[in-house]
Amino acid sequence: MGSDGAEPGSVRPGGRTARVRTAVLRAAGDALAERGFAHLDLADIARRAEVGKTTVYRRWGTATGLVADLLADMAEQSLPRTETGSLLGDLRANARLVQRTLADPRQGALFKAVIAAATCEAKTAEALHHFYDVRVTEWAPCVQQAIDRGEVPEGTDTHEVIRAVSAPLYYRLLTSGGPLDEDAADQAAAAAATAAAAGAYLRGKELG
Amino acid sequence: MGSDGAEPGSVRPGGRTARVRTAVLRAAGDALAERGFAHLDLADIARRAEVGKTTVYRRWGTATGLVADLLADMAEQSLPRTETGSLLGDLRANARLVQRTLADPRQGALFKAVIAAATCEAKTAEALHHFYDVRVTEWAPCVQQAIDRGEVPEGTDTHEVIRAVSAPLYYRLLTSGGPLDEDAADQAAAAAATAAAAGAYLRGKELG
Repeated sequence: MGSDGAEPGSVRPGGRTARVRTAVLRAAGDALAERGFAHLDLADIARRAEVGKTTVYRRWGTATGLVADLLADMAEQSLPRTETGSLLGDLRANARLVQRTLADPRQGALFKAVIAAATCEAKTAEALHHFYDVRVTEWAPCVQQAIDRGEVPEGTDTHEVIRAVSAPLYYRLLTSGGPLDEDAADQAAAAAATAAAAGAYLRGKELG
Repeated sequence: MGSDGAEPGSVRPGGRTARVRTAVLRAAGDALAERGFAHLDLADIARRAEVGKTTVYRRWGTATGLVADLLADMAEQSLPRTETGSLLGDLRANARLVQRTLADPRQGALFKAVIAAATCEAKTAEALHHFYDVRVTEWAPCVQQAIDRGEVPEGTDTHEVIRAVSAPLYYRLLTSGGPLDEDAADQAAAAAATAAAAGAYLRGKELG
């Protein structure tokens, strides 16, 4: 495997099979970020990863299968949450992590590509939903801690509060445009924290 | 032009040119909803619209140009806002309109397709941003009215409040999955109204 197949720091232990997966998924991420999903081609990925074409076809089968495995890997590598001692601080740390990811040229383009792929492939959509489930489940305990501290009412849907932090940032990325900067992240965090404290995310609440 | 080229009610005045545009844009919307952007083909659109292929090529040039014109037409046809007398009521009316649109099989698939197309085509992204600008500008006055009534602080970014209502619904459509039902709409409206009233959307606010 060549030196440009995978950066040295990204090679995880586990022998040849793991190294091949790392190199292929890194190449798939690069290709998606550069050219989007429509142009994803397994032979090109094998070439970029310096891995035999047969290995790639045998192991991943189709471009859709490869994207699903990339999303599974991204879910496994999801960063642990930060604990700051307040709901606003925790949600802001989460918002800034999402913002930095989406504003990064490679990562932003990669997310756009997999989300676009998921609009037309059920298997990719499933893998994408799983990725967000893992991410949201990692961060939801900060809302439970806020409930325990009395900052947020009992019965709040902790997962929905975390989704509310990400939603305005993805909305800018995918639909409305607009800057993906720290102000956008802080505003998303503040809005979610304020609404959560006021009971807007109570499960099954009828407002009116 | 055959009777299935455009529904009678959707034929706008303006003679043959306008009728051709209506039929072609309707066919483009149908094709996008059925098959996604990757398969959009001008010859197929001409056939569906029962319009000469040459007319379609001469007038729209490429699939990208056709999608941009479809988005321009969707912006022109954006529904006027509802006035209910309260910010929560107005935002809920907006949220339910977005939710019904995204939950509708044809419309939801059409939005997914144009958003996916916008991830890889700058011209489509520009047309998409314009569509959301028009929509947000139509609804933003309800936030200004809430400011005038003293429900929301002066200096609030009225456009951002409207975007905050849509964001969680698009997030479900495009990334996390989850039901696109009235509860989701009402929660999005309540969260945005609560956060706006608490000053979370003040322009340039530094929250700490």
